[in-house]
Amino acid sequence: MDAAEFKEAATTTIDEIIAYFETLPARDVVSRVEPGYLRKLLPSTAPDEGESWPAIQRDVEAAILPGITHWSHPGFHAFFPCATSYPSILGELYSAALSGACFNWVCSPAVTELETVVLDWLARMLALPPCFLSTGPTRGGGVIQGSASEAVLTAMVAARDKYLRETVPADLLEGSDAREEAVMLKRSRMVALATTLTHSSAKKAALILGCRFRAVRVREEDGYALTREGLAAALTECRAQGLEPFFLTVTLGTTDVCSVDDFAGVAEALDEHVPAGQPGEVWVHVDAAYAGAALVCPEVQEATRIGLIGRFHSFDMNMHKWLLVNFDASCFFVRDREWLVQALSVNQAVYDNKASDGGLVTDYREWQIPLGRRFRSLKIWFVLRSYGVKGLQEYIRRTIKMGEDFAEALRARSDLFDIITGPSFALTVFRLAAKSEGASLEERNALTKKLYDAVNAMGKIWVTSTELDGRFAIRLMTGVRTTQKEHVDAAVKILVEVAEEVMRG
Amino acid sequence: MDAAEFKEAATTTIDEIIAYFETLPARDVVSRVEPGYLRKLLPSTAPDEGESWPAIQRDVEAAILPGITHWSHPGFHAFFPCATSYPSILGELYSAALSGACFNWVCSPAVTELETVVLDWLARMLALPPCFLSTGPTRGGGVIQGSASEAVLTAMVAARDKYLRETVPADLLEGSDAREEAVMLKRSRMVALATTLTHSSAKKAALILGCRFRAVRVREEDGYALTREGLAAALTECRAQGLEPFFLTVTLGTTDVCSVDDFAGVAEALDEHVPAGQPGEVWVHVDAAYAGAALVCPEVQEATRIGLIGRFHSFDMNMHKWLLVNFDASCFFVRDREWLVQALSVNQAVYDNKASDGGLVTDYREWQIPLGRRFRSLKIWFVLRSYGVKGLQEYIRRTIKMGEDFAEALRARSDLFDIITGPSFALTVFRLAAKSEGASLEERNALTKKLYDAVNAMGKIWVTSTELDGRFAIRLMTGVRTTQKEHVDAAVKILVEVAEEVMRG
Repeated sequence: MDAAEFKEAATTTIDEIIAYFETLPARDVVSRVEPGYLRKLLPSTAPDEGESWPAIQRDVEAAILPGITHWSHPGFHAFFPCATSYPSILGELYSAALSGACFNWVCSPAVTELETVVLDWLARMLALPPCFLSTGPTRGGGVIQGSASEAVLTAMVAARDKYLRETVPADLLEGSDAREEAVMLKRSRMVALATTLTHSSAKKAALILGCRFRAVRVREEDGYALTREGLAAALTECRAQGLEPFFLTVTLGTTDVCSVDDFAGVAEALDEHVPAGQPGEVWVHVDAAYAGAALVCPEVQEATRIGLIGRFHSFDMNMHKWLLVNFDASCFFVRDREWLVQALSVNQAVYDNKASDGGLVTDYREWQIPLGRRFRSLKIWFVLRSYGVKGLQEYIRRTIKMGEDFAEALRARSDLFDIITGPSFALTVFRLAAKSEGASLEERNALTKKLYDAVNAMGKIWVTSTELDGRFAIRLMTGVRTTQKEHVDAAVKILVEVAEEVMRG
Repeated sequence: MDAAEFKEAATTTIDEIIAYFETLPARDVVSRVEPGYLRKLLPSTAPDEGESWPAIQRDVEAAILPGITHWSHPGFHAFFPCATSYPSILGELYSAALSGACFNWVCSPAVTELETVVLDWLARMLALPPCFLSTGPTRGGGVIQGSASEAVLTAMVAARDKYLRETVPADLLEGSDAREEAVMLKRSRMVALATTLTHSSAKKAALILGCRFRAVRVREEDGYALTREGLAAALTECRAQGLEPFFLTVTLGTTDVCSVDDFAGVAEALDEHVPAGQPGEVWVHVDAAYAGAALVCPEVQEATRIGLIGRFHSFDMNMHKWLLVNFDASCFFVRDREWLVQALSVNQAVYDNKASDGGLVTDYREWQIPLGRRFRSLKIWFVLRSYGVKGLQEYIRRTIKMGEDFAEALRARSDLFDIITGPSFALTVFRLAAKSEGASLEERNALTKKLYDAVNAMGKIWVTSTELDGRFAIRLMTGVRTTQKEHVDAAVKILVEVAEEVMRG
């Protein structure tokens, strides 16, 4: 494909993308293809001879689009949003052209430096404590990870190594067999903590590291938040079992219900265990993957008392969820970047260069699991500048308001629906109202499931489900960029109609 | 940004990308900015009000491009290539528009299914043994990872869990304290093996998992390849120390010199340790990150005896290095996908869905570290179809031939240069010839370093260095898409002129 062919191909693609967004509302949200549909449509080997672009592009429409579930559809109320926006797409376009494996500063200084700058912008926008800024007092800073899963894994690795440095006797020589044995023994006693509503990525990180994991149960009466008492009891229990807690994930906006852990209570319980800054302190990672975006609004900064997280060690939020940057852009901040470098730095002669040796630059490969990295800060920069802080605040407030309207509409039909939690950060979790006083849990679950399946089968909206203390529940989120009040009203209408049918039996 | 603004912005961006590639040869390869250049050019906070696209785009040229090191420059001879191409850019463009966190099949069936199809295409093109195909006899298959680092980490996690399943006594109940203790003890004895020329990502994976790591020394007289004898000695030594090897990384094309480990010898040494398929066998991961691309050519399939890797467990190559797909596209294959699922599957109620429960579909989140994933197979599909197998073969052969021409040119000036290794897969490693019979190692290293620094300072080409048995050496690779014979000739001319100067003193 030469430049002229590319120009024509790209122009057509741009038109197709615009047409895609404009025709989205008319499509079903979730793809209706059957498993294995695509293999039937495609040859079993790559072509020997190159094909022309029109032939390839035709297949995008014919073979690919039917298999797409539309995350930007106004009726997408499932999970959390996975964003995209025009400025973000332009960022990916440039990034693909400027492709490089930018593991070190010298491999493209702009890739490293723009990342540092825009993550500082973001930290300020979200009112994160100054310790998370690259220019802050504690040598903190931000780095773009591929996902919140990678962020929690990275944090856990750094935390494990920090804990080992602080607790394995210093008189055991680095590199000695005796030290290796002591480290192995210590590792076998270490345990990572989370709650029963923490995202599964925390458990997966522990699985990957091969370290013990305990989930502290959170309760409805506490708003599904981790409390001082809950954490204190878990710490005591670990100690009694001879285990050493070294890591805790707290959440700002859990996946199931968007609950927020009690940061002040958590800090108090930890201070009674090992005070902040003391050797052997528990590293606290704040998972704000989805709801962290709402911190662009001062009222949310205040309500969540975000300043308290200066006591903690790392923070992560995904701009690719609710902040209009397309996947992937997980923004991960640490209070002291040396914690990452000490855990993740590996030398190889071929990567030696003057700038790195000089110590004046950041080599992000030492802040992450992979070596190479894409130019992801570009799309963040484009989105922040295109929308401006006010534009992003407006968008977040609009979607939160739609969540409130939705919950209000459910409350107005309390004959049909029971809200279990929310609205919280544009998420409401509900189930079908009880048909009669003595309705059993199983019966209510079965009826709610019936409502859930029937609504999703229509194709106009997509909602997901969860289970809370044995109750099957429906989650509806109103955070997608294209969703407007009229779409939420339509979702309510669908839910009411189907619920009435289900209730009639 | 509305649709009309996007159309205009995207059209301009397309033109800028075309102009970028056309003006590349006139630019310096490596950015010449000073550390911290960008912070001085940008404000310290995001703008409150949104900005217009022309203002943003002006800054790409003014602030970003000066800080870019051009990986697609014809004079880029450093590291390995990090590719891009027009069809690949179109893939990213569509992918950004169709953004979704496609962790499960239902989240966009096309994202999962196209990945399975194109990785089967790729496996066939590279003549991987059928066990690595999704339709093969062992339930194998491929998955796109972000980088070779993530691939080796994923393989190591799966290998560790497979080894534990096979070696921890089965009578210890799953979930019991006794089993957890036995697993912890076993883990503390396990060791991952590699060679002194294995890429640092293998060591980093072991660091992340917190498991022991040993690098077997490879020698010049063996062509820097791991041999049967070398591996057998290492296995014996581990046993003597009470350690249990569970993982070995072998390489097809090491980063430093593009050596290829002796697959047949490795298989023999392992069979003497624990025979293939027996409980406690060593998982062998084949790292072909760069050179794996050359397997599109039948003559390379034959020369490397690639069929032998059917004895091994996983294989990884980066299309984003030498196969014209932009970063990231690391193609990772396993012989039995259940090994991944058993190690990486974590349940969470919110992800439950009929298709997954039915067992007919692949949920790639269980094959990788992260949960979410981008639609990366699209750019692979576009590149394979645009170029065709023949087009890719032509490209690989052309760049290998340029490597041979380059080495030939160095050999013709043996008064100036000593080739240490290569050309191997378009990579030649060399140093300055000795000035006199008795020249010391230090003196030669210093002079070669002088040549290296002077050549890179000119800005016309970029080469990287390594150290082999104490010898400072220059690496020159001719794999970049835009590099033509004239550029290699120009590189030779520069090297000869500067070398003559350095030799004169």
